[in-house]
Amino acid sequence: MDQNGISERLESLPGWQQEVDVISKTFKFVDFAEAFEFMTKVAAVAEQMNHHPEWTNVYNTVDVRLTSHEAGGLSDADFKLAAEMNRLAGQ
Amino acid sequence: MDQNGISERLESLPGWQQEVDVISKTFKFVDFAEAFEFMTKVAAVAEQMNHHPEWTNVYNTVDVRLTSHEAGGLSDADFKLAAEMNRLAGQ
Repeated sequence: MDQNGISERLESLPGWQQEVDVISKTFKFVDFAEAFEFMTKVAAVAEQMNHHPEWTNVYNTVDVRLTSHEAGGLSDADFKLAAEMNRLAGQ
Repeated sequence: MDQNGISERLESLPGWQQEVDVISKTFKFVDFAEAFEFMTKVAAVAEQMNHHPEWTNVYNTVDVRLTSHEAGGLSDADFKLAAEMNRLAGQ
């Protein structure tokens, strides 16, 4: 469905929004230990940046969503943290 | 940040994507019982449509994300289910 179709349909759906203000990625690792090592490194960076991911970990998979609610959309912090996460995952 | 800024930054971030193919809504109810009554009604509709939400329930809140992975984006089924959920929530 193209963007016009999406925008048109959303007009008649109170409270629903397209998640254009979120970037996401699924990180896969060899096992849980490696996945959690990644999360530990990211946690330190996130604390330092005072910018925190929405994330879920199941065994060797880490699903990440980044957004800046307080900025009302995506901000430089989201892209900086995304780049750090790629670096820490060796990607 | 505008769409050009977002698109430009994503180009240098392998694996990251903007979630344009997802619509979402947070439903709030009086209490857990009402929230789960809503989920029970939605579950029946979702089964009937063979189109299922990604959702999370914590007490009186239901966070819903709809997308059509197999269609490679949003489809009419997402908007139909969204409209049904609004109706069932009395919204």
